[in-house]
Amino acid sequence: MNEKRRPPKRDDQAPRRADRFAERTVVEEVEGQLEGRNALQEALKSGRTIDKVFVAAGDTDRGLQRLAAQAKEAGAVVVPVDRRKLDAMSTTRAHQGIIALAAAHEYCTIDDILEEAASRGEAPLIIICDELSDPHNLGAIMRSGECAGAHGVIIPKRRSVGLTATVAKASAGAVEYMKVARVTNVNNAISELKDKGVWIFGTAAEGSVPMYKADLTGPTAIVIGNEGDGMSQLVRKNCDMLVHIPMKGKISSLNASAAASILLYEAVRQRLG
Amino acid sequence: MNEKRRPPKRDDQAPRRADRFAERTVVEEVEGQLEGRNALQEALKSGRTIDKVFVAAGDTDRGLQRLAAQAKEAGAVVVPVDRRKLDAMSTTRAHQGIIALAAAHEYCTIDDILEEAASRGEAPLIIICDELSDPHNLGAIMRSGECAGAHGVIIPKRRSVGLTATVAKASAGAVEYMKVARVTNVNNAISELKDKGVWIFGTAAEGSVPMYKADLTGPTAIVIGNEGDGMSQLVRKNCDMLVHIPMKGKISSLNASAAASILLYEAVRQRLG
Repeated sequence: MNEKRRPPKRDDQAPRRADRFAERTVVEEVEGQLEGRNALQEALKSGRTIDKVFVAAGDTDRGLQRLAAQAKEAGAVVVPVDRRKLDAMSTTRAHQGIIALAAAHEYCTIDDILEEAASRGEAPLIIICDELSDPHNLGAIMRSGECAGAHGVIIPKRRSVGLTATVAKASAGAVEYMKVARVTNVNNAISELKDKGVWIFGTAAEGSVPMYKADLTGPTAIVIGNEGDGMSQLVRKNCDMLVHIPMKGKISSLNASAAASILLYEAVRQRLG
Repeated sequence: MNEKRRPPKRDDQAPRRADRFAERTVVEEVEGQLEGRNALQEALKSGRTIDKVFVAAGDTDRGLQRLAAQAKEAGAVVVPVDRRKLDAMSTTRAHQGIIALAAAHEYCTIDDILEEAASRGEAPLIIICDELSDPHNLGAIMRSGECAGAHGVIIPKRRSVGLTATVAKASAGAVEYMKVARVTNVNNAISELKDKGVWIFGTAAEGSVPMYKADLTGPTAIVIGNEGDGMSQLVRKNCDMLVHIPMKGKISSLNASAAASILLYEAVRQRLG
């Protein structure tokens, strides 16, 4: 959309660096487009259906060739294309010579997430993202969540980034393993979780309990708010407990994915007992 | 540089989304160029010298006007410019109508960082970044470090991103408060810290000690390795202790800034006693 508002011609004396950088806000991307070796590798490992793989023609890199062969064996159609075509397709600008089209990511239900926890014999550890808009943040949260052994992520259908290529890339493959439920209404999801015995922990600067004092060993869902505005008023009200992460410096807030990582690993620490 | 290798003309049928996204690797940027309201606000609050402020002409947003007035009062020359000029200048693509040119960031010495800790009456908590290449990571680490009350960051002069506009923006203003020492040789810096009684903790998957068992209450420096390769062999050898963050999932590594955030807040937890 922004494209149209751009000046048709740039001042040649002005630096064109801008092109090389991200606008880290919500953007349209193609779901199911996997870019880069790591993303495809993890998709194959997890058994996800890959429809097509575009690989840079003439690139003799052995790792790349092996990956393309693996994808072919798994049933994908492998198409060698000019690197410039990959550049044009790419939404992450870091395709590393390979872009794959996967079957659309399958979202799951909240029950699937709870069953995942049960099957591992663990108390549920769930992340609820309340209208995150930055795909890098959602990807980073999925990556930290997977490393911390979380059982699933809940995202709302509207006003939230979905599972796009940038999210997949930022997740370093975690998107392939993590169960993701996409819900119509976050507050309804919270009610459902509460009914099923899960405790809802929101993070807020004014939270009454320091996170180290919150008991995260039971069935736990951690709510991460929007980057700019935090949690919505209603979501905040629906939390069982508002916890705060101690702030020892002059700036007042952590990045959403840093906050999530810190909380998730506090749960890991407590659960190691 | 990459610019030159781009196809001169794009296929019109190909999506041009690529332009809107980041290549999250080392790039040249202008030190001292602050983009966005938050970055300028924090620079003014911290008393940093602002030479010039370019503000979108005709933008009547009150917050923007107030910020420009503040900068003027602090001695900056305020120049209204066409928004397209801001777009062209911008390296972060999120200038929010304002770009400021500050005096170059002043780097400090390792002794300055130790003195900062002493002046707060705290055991030093220092972050050593071993050849980080992603400005978003360095910025995020500075943000989490500032929130966790760390006393300074050490970065090498070579093969590392410096304090650029993207770093400043990702740091959400932390760059204004955090002491940063830029050293010729990370291993010499480690020796100097050791001589002064600081313990050096490296993070590695094969680290023998789980981080929760490491004592981070004394004078502590945490080494964060390069995104791709981790710490260099020599740096790894020079660490007093290699700690690992428990990995409970299928993917094997955390993002560098997530790992830093988790370790820093483990230090906060231990120091709260």
